[in-house]
Amino acid sequence: MANTNNNSDGQRLNASGTTTGAVISIDAMGGDLGPAPVVRGMADHAKNNADVRFIVHGDEAELTVLIKKQRSLAGICEISGTSEVVEMDAKPSHVMRHGKNTSMWSAIDSVKNREANVVVSCGNTGALMAVSMIRLRKLEGVNRPAIACLWPSRSKQEFNILLDVGADIRADSHDLLQYALMGVSYARNGLGLKRPRVGLLNVGTESHKGHQDLKDAYELIAQKTESAGFEFVGFVEGSDIPKDKADVIVTDGFTGNIALKTGEGTASLIRDFLKDAFKKTPLSRLAALLALTSLRRLTKRIDPRRVNGGLFLGLNGTVVKSHGSADATGVAAAINLAHQLEKQSFADRLAARVSTGADAESTQKEEK
Amino acid sequence: MANTNNNSDGQRLNASGTTTGAVISIDAMGGDLGPAPVVRGMADHAKNNADVRFIVHGDEAELTVLIKKQRSLAGICEISGTSEVVEMDAKPSHVMRHGKNTSMWSAIDSVKNREANVVVSCGNTGALMAVSMIRLRKLEGVNRPAIACLWPSRSKQEFNILLDVGADIRADSHDLLQYALMGVSYARNGLGLKRPRVGLLNVGTESHKGHQDLKDAYELIAQKTESAGFEFVGFVEGSDIPKDKADVIVTDGFTGNIALKTGEGTASLIRDFLKDAFKKTPLSRLAALLALTSLRRLTKRIDPRRVNGGLFLGLNGTVVKSHGSADATGVAAAINLAHQLEKQSFADRLAARVSTGADAESTQKEEK
Repeated sequence: MANTNNNSDGQRLNASGTTTGAVISIDAMGGDLGPAPVVRGMADHAKNNADVRFIVHGDEAELTVLIKKQRSLAGICEISGTSEVVEMDAKPSHVMRHGKNTSMWSAIDSVKNREANVVVSCGNTGALMAVSMIRLRKLEGVNRPAIACLWPSRSKQEFNILLDVGADIRADSHDLLQYALMGVSYARNGLGLKRPRVGLLNVGTESHKGHQDLKDAYELIAQKTESAGFEFVGFVEGSDIPKDKADVIVTDGFTGNIALKTGEGTASLIRDFLKDAFKKTPLSRLAALLALTSLRRLTKRIDPRRVNGGLFLGLNGTVVKSHGSADATGVAAAINLAHQLEKQSFADRLAARVSTGADAESTQKEEK
Repeated sequence: MANTNNNSDGQRLNASGTTTGAVISIDAMGGDLGPAPVVRGMADHAKNNADVRFIVHGDEAELTVLIKKQRSLAGICEISGTSEVVEMDAKPSHVMRHGKNTSMWSAIDSVKNREANVVVSCGNTGALMAVSMIRLRKLEGVNRPAIACLWPSRSKQEFNILLDVGADIRADSHDLLQYALMGVSYARNGLGLKRPRVGLLNVGTESHKGHQDLKDAYELIAQKTESAGFEFVGFVEGSDIPKDKADVIVTDGFTGNIALKTGEGTASLIRDFLKDAFKKTPLSRLAALLALTSLRRLTKRIDPRRVNGGLFLGLNGTVVKSHGSADATGVAAAINLAHQLEKQSFADRLAARVSTGADAESTQKEEK
């Protein structure tokens, strides 16, 4: 249940009650691999970040044992015991009606109740969005929240932002404009870009291409570039997503989800082919040994775990969705993203940006 | 103009008039690189295929010179001189009204007039589809033609078929059913699969996901599996496109185009990262030398030129669209695909399949 403070010995919140550091709410149970990699990911993050504390939601006995094993977590975790877990194949509508006792619900309520500013979950995406919507509510002025992901790219910041990658399969021109504004805010606070470049995903770059909603969105976004402080590079194609062309790529949740998974599938295919190529002959196996450092460098650069963490945009609070099968490295990356955004007071800045229609100069200044 | 027989010396059709081999109509002018790589691609194909002849459409003087340089093309080319070229950025509607004197129009008319059974063009995709539609007409029973592409995959045939990748940005459930049936026919005749597996692209594999049109298409396709002789694996995700799960992946032209270009963009990004990784240090450059064979093996496997050739489905005649910037290797791959389909009498088989709603047993037998 939410808000129960069943703390176990030694895992209590700092007794001093000081709240200078970030407090991150963690749904420890929802992932495919259970709570163990989640707790290891928390520990990895805590090693490099002295100013973080966690409220950890899930099976109390199991979490107590796991957390005790990690020296870096001593004294910075509060366990909120819950009895149920949202299954990966649960229907969002079912979880909305019957999910009150789940670790996911409880983790989101920590943000609702302002005990934490940001929540991280490896759970069922649809359920996480549904529960976030009913508990945190949409930001004033946002019709459809979106999920944004980071995409390895040739841009100098090494990642571009793609949204929506699956919060909602529909989006009209006004939703696409909102996605552009929210993506700009994410690019400033998450990637440190002062004047992000926005592109609108289409089947060609010519202005006559695409659905009417896209053409309308083109006009709406173009009108906001000056007042909201971003560049608009116009229509971009699928091949432009990883290029140094747009920092924020805007699309509806159906198309964005297909693009994201197609990119993941292609990268995975090439990784397999690469392994095959180096296993083929004894000589190629020798070559692989010599090339190991180079190959590791490549693998690291396209490692999906490095960019783990879909960000829910358009809610009263920051929700980071980690991949369902994330290991400790993946969870740590998602927690790091959450921590980074929390340090930038991202939730408040995004709210200010959206509520003013991104027209107020004060918003721009606030965001640097 | 179409049907003018301005043959130059030595480039005439075989005097005997025998028509045992395949006749392929070539639009030599439409690509980004002009006619030179097109003629080299024809020559490469002719070296390995004694039974092929070409009707080549474009600038007569230029083509005569280029063809004379290629020994393998001696005596198997007929040049159809045309004065205009469709530009890459021309609007399809403009080409439909004013394109009669272009090499593209003339090349398509060779199929319309039954001088050739198949046409290959590197030109503007939208214009090629528009002119193909008005000159060849849609097959009876087809509402929207589609463009199918081959996707490198883990399937035993090494490629899966994705369609539509951009003929039309809209598709309702009946169109998606037609795409499934046409894709099955392509998989049988082009990839030699007796009972292809069909998947319907969606944002998840669960039956409650996606637009209503997709849910309706799911039902329509599921009803045809027995009568039309294919497996239906249900909904598939973007990450499944390159997997050994479905041989034919069906989607609308908007989504398919984004998926295709996202896949290309991802592969290109990883190729660049791979190059970077092996250039970083003197040792990694040495490793690259030793790993050269392995890397070449990989590069060959993901070389987009090997799978060059989008196939237009749903017209009275076979149209193969080669990539606009294809080099000789790419053009040869597109010509090879055209030749392969022509040998299987693909156009007739597809027509039979579509006109019978793929219910007639005779159609299945005809297709093996």
